[in-house]
This record gives sequence, structure tokens and C-alpha cells, in this order.
Amino acid sequence: MTSEVRIVEVGPRDGLQNEKTLLPPDVKIALIDRLSTTGLKTIEATSFVSPRWVPQLADADEVFRKIRKVPHVGYPVLVPNEQGYRLARVAGATEVSVFTAASEAFNRANINASIAESLQRFQPILDHAKAEGVKVRGYVSTALGCPYQGDVPVADVVRVAKSLHEMGCYEISLGDTIGVGTPVKARAMLHAVAQEVPIDALAVHFHDTYGQALANILACLDEGVRVVDSAVSGTGGCPYAKGATGNVASEDVVYMLHGIGMQTGIDLELLVATGAWLSAQLNKPTASRVTKARTTV
Amino acid sequence: MTSEVRIVEVGPRDGLQNEKTLLPPDVKIALIDRLSTTGLKTIEATSFVSPRWVPQLADADEVFRKIRKVPHVGYPVLVPNEQGYRLARVAGATEVSVFTAASEAFNRANINASIAESLQRFQPILDHAKAEGVKVRGYVSTALGCPYQGDVPVADVVRVAKSLHEMGCYEISLGDTIGVGTPVKARAMLHAVAQEVPIDALAVHFHDTYGQALANILACLDEGVRVVDSAVSGTGGCPYAKGATGNVASEDVVYMLHGIGMQTGIDLELLVATGAWLSAQLNKPTASRVTKARTTV
Repeated sequence: MTSEVRIVEVGPRDGLQNEKTLLPPDVKIALIDRLSTTGLKTIEATSFVSPRWVPQLADADEVFRKIRKVPHVGYPVLVPNEQGYRLARVAGATEVSVFTAASEAFNRANINASIAESLQRFQPILDHAKAEGVKVRGYVSTALGCPYQGDVPVADVVRVAKSLHEMGCYEISLGDTIGVGTPVKARAMLHAVAQEVPIDALAVHFHDTYGQALANILACLDEGVRVVDSAVSGTGGCPYAKGATGNVASEDVVYMLHGIGMQTGIDLELLVATGAWLSAQLNKPTASRVTKARTTV
Repeated sequence: MTSEVRIVEVGPRDGLQNEKTLLPPDVKIALIDRLSTTGLKTIEATSFVSPRWVPQLADADEVFRKIRKVPHVGYPVLVPNEQGYRLARVAGATEVSVFTAASEAFNRANINASIAESLQRFQPILDHAKAEGVKVRGYVSTALGCPYQGDVPVADVVRVAKSLHEMGCYEISLGDTIGVGTPVKARAMLHAVAQEVPIDALAVHFHDTYGQALANILACLDEGVRVVDSAVSGTGGCPYAKGATGNVASEDVVYMLHGIGMQTGIDLELLVATGAWLSAQLNKPTASRVTKARTTV
């Protein structure tokens, strides 16, 4: 099994969309340009959603057009529907992400649609993408628990992940949106999904709400996953537990991966410097313990 | 292998001795009394060291005398030498801890003695303790790295742990004092020590300086350890990385343990309430992500 792990940096999108502080587009562009120099191979840049839903990312078009596109680095953008896909393509995106939940209750509350309706809504995106040579990544949220319905049956996660893969998503990211999962459950969920979707088409996406993210990642690496989502400086928070910790910090993930002998191609010092710079821009302490240890005096 | 894990709560000693805020003795007594109701079976209460070295714990005698000793809960206290042992015994302690490093450079800088000299200094403590029916716990610090010498050879950790065990320590706690360790190294170190000291006489002690503590604990549980040191609310900091995170938070450890099907006998809600109360006393945000998620709005 390979010891190379690909980090999907989701800070500019999943992180910033859940921060109270609105950063101006120039700062977001500077963030992504800095991240592009660290060795990261995938940086989710923004989301082409309605500014009514996510005012934090109303500048998607400007940000995406102005970032420096480094060769061999992918810059996927989230698109909620066909219209978002079209806007992303006009801005120059060649990789997009789609997002649904494993929990019916969450999907209904979050985007006012059943999971089946969400999947139907993605079909034209996947059709266009295939015709246009655009890669599509799929997110399955609430894979280990839901703020509305509580437990989420593993079979539901498997079904949604399998559908997205069959529809043409090249990679499915399994997300513990509210960060409640623990290592044994996380690994069992991944194992179940891997019976239906090849493990090298799977990624894991943990939030550190209950501090479990690195332990969960370790357990999932044991199960064979080699793609991990994270956000520099651990931005994001959790809308369902106000004040809580957000996405697992990229710095802490990379520190662990390098420590256990995995390769990421990422320069940890550059990542730490970027995380420290971002926390200054957001005017809040970094949630990365590596960056805290390396930069505070 | 048993699924029961014993948490050794080190907050009142290892945590508070590294906090800038000095708590009055009444607050420390209230903290320990609260912890005694959570189901914890071992609470390290204080340290009988010279107030010149650790002014935070100058009230050791008063605190130890006034805490409510709950039956079947152990209240070990740290003692640096025979004099400290005598003071602890006079105050009523029936369990003590001794502390040395696996790194010569650290031991020299920290207590101005070689490791061999430290061990010699402990011999009369262990002799008295044996005669008086007092249990002695041993700490081996810098087990995964040293702020002065860098790498610490695993053989050095094994040698010190074996010596303490042979001298009569019933349990040896292997500590990553500066929190730099990662899961594969942590597990390999534990594995090596377990070749010379029975695994059920070993404990692990992680600091969350680089965010690795829970992942390290998970790896060490896989190796068979069933005793874990932690501090409620993650108090402590790190003198070698100012501003960094301290001991791994007991709440986050217990959340993970219960999540993976281990039993601790601890009521997590009572522990979270105690952690939230302590962070208010210290006037700083809790470092426990579980407590943050459960108590902030």
C-alpha cells in the first residue's frame, strides 16, 4: 500500500464559509496563492452558491479568476446546481464538487431537498462535466452523525457514496460534519463504503469538534484511505455547536503523516507560516496546535 | 484483552503547575473534590516540592489535608526526594510519584542531576514506601523527544522504565513531555518498554502540543496499554513552546474511549462540567474540544 497521502485543502471554502469574519477577496486570493506554494496538490478554492445562502463566498467569481493557477495543482469549486456549475465554468473552473448528506433530515434542513432530489439535481452537472472533461468530486456529509436525526445508518452512507460514484464522481469525500465520530466507528463506516466504492476513490473529511479528527484519520489510514481533507489553521467552526472547533487543521494532519512515515509533498514550515498569517487575518487564535507550538512566544 | 481503561487525572498537579494563573488552595480543593465525584479512580493531587521551584504548588500540605478522600479513589502526590516523601506522608499521603527523564540533558537541566543520581535519590523513598505500604508510581519524561538533546533513543526509555520497575514502582508512566511524538513512534516506544516491563504496569502520558495526543493514545491502546494520564480541561501548557497546548484533555480522552467501546467508569457530563468550571477559575478558554462543543453558545 502506498505511503503517499494527498491532502485536499478545504480552508478557503469549507473553512471560510463558516467563519464569522468576512475576508475581502484580495485576502482570499493571497491565501490561496500562499497555499499553492506549499506543495498542496488540491485546494478547494470557493463555492459558486447563491450569496443569499453563503454571503462569505459572494466573491467566488472574482477570487477564482484572480488566483494564480499553479500547474499540477487542482482548484475544485463547490457547485450546488447546474447554474452554479455554469458560473464556475465561465470563471474557468476545470474541477467541481457536489455536496449531499447521508442523512435525509440534514439534507432537508440544509438544502430543502431529499437526498434523491439532490442526486437528480447533480445528474446534469455530471453529464456536462463528462462532456467537457471536468472532474467532479462528491461530498457525503453527516457520515457519522446528524444534528437532527442523531445516528446515521452506515447503509445510508454506503448507498449515497455508491450513487455518486456510479454517477461519475472520481472521488467521494466522507464527512463527519458535526465531528462526533470516534475511530472504531469511522473505520467501520469507511470499510463498509469501500465494499462498494474502490478505496482509492474515497477520501475522509473530519471536523475536530470533539477533538477526534487525528485519531479518526489514523484509523482510516489503517483501513487504506490515502486522501484526507483538512483546512489550514483549522478554520470553520461548527454551526451546530457554536464556539466549537472546526475543520481538522492541515498543519496537524501533515505533522502526523510525516511523523508516521507518510509522504505528502507538503512543506510543513510553509503551511505553518500560512496558517499563522491566516489566523492574523481572521484576528483569532489558530486552531492548529502545531502552528500554536511553532509560532507563539 | 480488557476493555477497561483507568484514567490518571493529572490536572491538579501537572496541569496547574504549568499554568500562569495561581489558584488559591480552596479552589484546588474544590477542583479535586469535584473530580472525586466523576468516577475517576486516580487523581494526582499535588506535589511536595520546594516552593522555590514550583510556587504554584506551595500549598501542597493544606490542599492534601483538606481534600475529601473518597474510598477507592487514589490520590498520589509527586515527591522529588526523601524530604518531600516525608512531608507527603505527614500530610497523610498513601501513594506517591517519582519523576525522572529518559534524556540525560533534560534531567540535568530540570533537576540538576544525572538520571543515575535521580534513581539513587529515589531508592530510600522506595525503601520507606515498601516498609510503610505506600504505592509508588514512576514517571519517565521525554520518552519521545527532548527540548535539549532532540531525539531520545528508545533503549534509554526502556532502561529507565525497567530500573523504576525493578526498584518497586507499581506503575511506570511514559511521558511525551514536549508533545512531539506521533503514533508509530509512540507505539514502537511502548512496545520496546513492554519487552522489559509488563504492559499492565505501564501507562502513557501525552501532551497535546502538536495535537497528536489522542492519535498516540489510540495507537498505544492497540499495543495493549490500559492506563492513560490526562488533565481535565487540558491544562498545563508547555514550558518549551510558550502558548502551546498542554496535557491532553481528560474529557477528549474519555469521549474517544467510550466511543470505541472502552469503559472508564467516568461520567463524561460531570467531567465536562468540572472542566468548564476550571476554565472559568483560570479565566482562559478550555483546551478540551469536547467541553468547548458542549458548553459554548
